Amino acid sequence: MPDFSRGAAYVDGQLVPIAEAKISLLDWGFLHSDATYDVAHVWKGKFFRLDDHVERFLSGMGKLHMSIPHSHDDLRSILVDCVRASGLREAYVEMVCTRGFPKPGSRDPRTCTNQFFAFAIPFVWIANPQKQTEGLHLIVSRWQRIPPESVDPTVKNYHWLDMVMGLFEAYDRGGETTVVVDTRGNLVEGPGFNIFAVKGRTFTTPVRGVLEGITRRTVIEMASEYGYEVVQRNLPAEEARTADEVFVTSTAGGIMPITKIDGRAIGSGTRGPVTQELQKGYWALHEDPHHTFKIDYE
Amino acid sequence: MPDFSRGAAYVDGQLVPIAEAKISLLDWGFLHSDATYDVAHVWKGKFFRLDDHVERFLSGMGKLHMSIPHSHDDLRSILVDCVRASGLREAYVEMVCTRGFPKPGSRDPRTCTNQFFAFAIPFVWIANPQKQTEGLHLIVSRWQRIPPESVDPTVKNYHWLDMVMGLFEAYDRGGETTVVVDTRGNLVEGPGFNIFAVKGRTFTTPVRGVLEGITRRTVIEMASEYGYEVVQRNLPAEEARTADEVFVTSTAGGIMPITKIDGRAIGSGTRGPVTQELQKGYWALHEDPHHTFKIDYE
Repeated sequence: MPDFSRGAAYVDGQLVPIAEAKISLLDWGFLHSDATYDVAHVWKGKFFRLDDHVERFLSGMGKLHMSIPHSHDDLRSILVDCVRASGLREAYVEMVCTRGFPKPGSRDPRTCTNQFFAFAIPFVWIANPQKQTEGLHLIVSRWQRIPPESVDPTVKNYHWLDMVMGLFEAYDRGGETTVVVDTRGNLVEGPGFNIFAVKGRTFTTPVRGVLEGITRRTVIEMASEYGYEVVQRNLPAEEARTADEVFVTSTAGGIMPITKIDGRAIGSGTRGPVTQELQKGYWALHEDPHHTFKIDYE
Repeated sequence: MPDFSRGAAYVDGQLVPIAEAKISLLDWGFLHSDATYDVAHVWKGKFFRLDDHVERFLSGMGKLHMSIPHSHDDLRSILVDCVRASGLREAYVEMVCTRGFPKPGSRDPRTCTNQFFAFAIPFVWIANPQKQTEGLHLIVSRWQRIPPESVDPTVKNYHWLDMVMGLFEAYDRGGETTVVVDTRGNLVEGPGFNIFAVKGRTFTTPVRGVLEGITRRTVIEMASEYGYEVVQRNLPAEEARTADEVFVTSTAGGIMPITKIDGRAIGSGTRGPVTQELQKGYWALHEDPHHTFKIDYE
């Protein structure tokens, strides 16, 4: 019996254990990072906002001139199949479309047959449970986020070397994670997350050059419901440093407090009340049938 | 008997037919395009400037904080083994180092074991033989090359979405290939190639934000020997459009003429004498023992 307990993947139209989930070295999804992807998550056996993730994924594929013979509903089914095969109740569920291979001898992407992959693996956290309470130490990187004039950030993509180098820089400078900046030093985003600064009853979050995160969207919706104002504009590093609270948002962990930036405490230096309120509300939404659906594991 | 005739690869320490050469979907080389690579070529059974490629590859790995248990000489041997297994006399030979996987539950790249892959496949041309004589129609893209403040271009990398989107734009506008630009509209590079403009006895080639191509270096060395001056500086699109000749350089095909830019003829609109002289000289160097070494296929 194949062991699906560490995850399951959909490759070449088949469900396989994650250990066997592979892509050809020659696929341009690897050789040119010519791919788009999305990640949804499963919490207590329920998918959270899956349709929003699938919709964004299909939109990204369109912008990259990619197509696959799967409808929105097909994709939903494949992702559910991956989770069901793995048996995981808390899972990180990724869908990927790659360019594929060109015709022999060609370098024309239009000759490629686009490829679809998906996999479910155990839930991944940007911050471990202790850090979700204590908060993370964030370093404002000297590296700049790849600008929208080079790569459309609304197409979720694997161009991460800026953030990887930012992480190494953050570790060197005593931090735990990083946020990369724009040409003027405004904060943009970190490896897999959006960022918010709270001042009074206003949330400020960067808008230019960022991925339009689904967790970011959830926070914007919650803010409106809770009576906070959300402003989407440039966020200078100094404004984050002097905010009451700072938090980051990601499918990989939800809402996570930043309690220190570049060695200096944010606000009280501990997780603030707004961040706590949002964390509580975020996980409560995971019981809301409007945002979730239950996987039938039988 | 496994069929190595379409190429051979080195994966997990084993030589395998190219059709079996695969990488895990979970390797960050794929999921974060966290990888560096290099490509050398074999012509008439001889490697061309292999040591220069291996040296650049090892330098890129260092800049990305990657390491593998293979010396320069080990890498040479592995690459020769790939070519020998394939039997190919004209081959495109790629070496790749990926970040690998983090420890379970971690997102810290320092916990990863870096992975090495290599493969030899039939030689790939950016321009087919007819186009090497006729010249290509180049479109100056509206897309900007990922800037050096985001990704160090001297680390040869797979962040190509800017160039892929540039290619689609070029096809839409009636062209055959593309060159992406910087924030001021200066030409930077194309998908896999550097660019040169010739005016009188001077070659101008972009210097900022470009990969320091080995074929580019070969042209610079040849220029000096043939009595041309080479200037490395910004190259505005208009200067290329009004040049006597324009050519591009790549391991995937050597020196290739650009005879039209954005629908307008360059110079006479046919391959110019300087480009021809360089093409002849470039292929002659493939007989020069200083730049090549013969593979023992027995």
